[in-house]
Amino acid sequence: MGKDAAGHFVKMVHNGIEYAIMEVISEVYDLLKNGLGYTNDQLHELFGRWNDGRLQSFLIEITRDIFATKDPETGGYLVDMILDKAGAKGTGKWTSQDAMDTGVAIPSIDMAVSMRTLSAYKDDRLKAAALYQPVIHKIQEDPAKFEAQVEAALYVSTIICYAQGLSLLVKASEELQMEIPLKDVVKIWRGGCIIRSTLLETFYQAYLADPNLSNILLDAKVAAEVKAGQQDLRDVVSQAAKSGIAIGAIQSSLAYLESFVSAKMPTNLIQAQRDNFGSHTYQRTDKEGIFHTQWEAHP
Amino acid sequence: MGKDAAGHFVKMVHNGIEYAIMEVISEVYDLLKNGLGYTNDQLHELFGRWNDGRLQSFLIEITRDIFATKDPETGGYLVDMILDKAGAKGTGKWTSQDAMDTGVAIPSIDMAVSMRTLSAYKDDRLKAAALYQPVIHKIQEDPAKFEAQVEAALYVSTIICYAQGLSLLVKASEELQMEIPLKDVVKIWRGGCIIRSTLLETFYQAYLADPNLSNILLDAKVAAEVKAGQQDLRDVVSQAAKSGIAIGAIQSSLAYLESFVSAKMPTNLIQAQRDNFGSHTYQRTDKEGIFHTQWEAHP
Repeated sequence: MGKDAAGHFVKMVHNGIEYAIMEVISEVYDLLKNGLGYTNDQLHELFGRWNDGRLQSFLIEITRDIFATKDPETGGYLVDMILDKAGAKGTGKWTSQDAMDTGVAIPSIDMAVSMRTLSAYKDDRLKAAALYQPVIHKIQEDPAKFEAQVEAALYVSTIICYAQGLSLLVKASEELQMEIPLKDVVKIWRGGCIIRSTLLETFYQAYLADPNLSNILLDAKVAAEVKAGQQDLRDVVSQAAKSGIAIGAIQSSLAYLESFVSAKMPTNLIQAQRDNFGSHTYQRTDKEGIFHTQWEAHP
Repeated sequence: MGKDAAGHFVKMVHNGIEYAIMEVISEVYDLLKNGLGYTNDQLHELFGRWNDGRLQSFLIEITRDIFATKDPETGGYLVDMILDKAGAKGTGKWTSQDAMDTGVAIPSIDMAVSMRTLSAYKDDRLKAAALYQPVIHKIQEDPAKFEAQVEAALYVSTIICYAQGLSLLVKASEELQMEIPLKDVVKIWRGGCIIRSTLLETFYQAYLADPNLSNILLDAKVAAEVKAGQQDLRDVVSQAAKSGIAIGAIQSSLAYLESFVSAKMPTNLIQAQRDNFGSHTYQRTDKEGIFHTQWEAHP
């Protein structure tokens, strides 16, 4: 698995991807439970069906099992008896911190870390809930249609979570000369780990075709899958926002995707602001070089 | 400004908040320019108007000036000639990394760091743009109505960016015994710094009333302002998603808000998953203690 610390680094990034996919699944749970009013029985059936399709993975499979597990003490569903304070061993956080040092954007993993952190602020949240009295609006879509859109949004978001983590491995491997063979990483992950999934076979084929692929989203087959589900992802983010359901990691996956495929981000304005208040200079679109302007007030 | 390293810490968090607000403004620019088709003249006029209202701040003011600044070389608007690769000196990144170590969620600042990072991957983005051929759909709202909603979304998002940074100062001050006086911090910021704004007066009053306020969103006056704009924030996120415009930091502010005011997050599922695959245990909603279940398959 490459040189020196490469094995540890790969395991850390694995866990970062795991954080993000788990957060995305929990947001889908929120959408279906509170947006559509699905019961645990319906969720069990749905995750079972999803696990028979392209979403097949260890995490979808155990989520299916969780929704059918009864609480021996009350006889109800165990998932409903579990407190919403999530723990963390730190590997998600380290992945985010390392990515920032390496100069790689992994916003879905960052958001997963944030949401676990926020979940632990239960006292503040209870005070805030009393003050804000939030209301969740039911999703006004045909449930079968929305369910299909959520499946696509989950699929595309999952691809993007992998894409972020894998792009960190590529860059860190280069910078630290770890020579991490991405093709072998995804093959080994497929063999057995918490993020094992059918999807990893697609990534394996992509790295087989191009071992130097900087981002899995640039593979033609992956791009075709993402493009096919992109509008559903947009629609789900749009519906969730209207309903008042927080889907931070799914949203972050969408923001990552839209920005990654954009030839022109609005960061030209940020460079203008930085040059205005701090003389940090900027580059131009029409020629090489570093420039600075004496910005004036224009009331 | 408190003890020992407190001054440096306060300056770092100031810059983290600055990153987030600048990112939010750049996303508003994207929405207005590409979603509504506003010209630089219109943006200049609008930011001028905004700067005369509750959004009054140094960053809104210089953004107004930027939209009126001409490029001496081409005669066009300078902002259009600036390359969209944003630089960074590292203070945003350090704020995010420190927040993760301190156990405080600051997702809007994290997203601002991610977006600057992504902006620098220009080669990959150009390849991805050719592969994905993204299309921005114009926003199908009455421009005057949407403009007012964007103003509210920008206002609420800005409050949330401050809230995240200030909550980090509160927690870090406690943990590291820095005794940072929040009331004085916002007063000094108001006096002169890049994030100086009329809003800081509201925060000053909040800390005057309760020096131990853990999160500015728990202040009654701030809560009233946020609640008044919350639906507009949701609508703007919803519209942006449909249009294909990435507004990661605005979305992250919404996800933070919805989660912070939620008495019940879907993280119970994450705890179930963690206990299922790693015996990480969970707490229950009906009694104290730490529990573990032997989860079984339920196909």
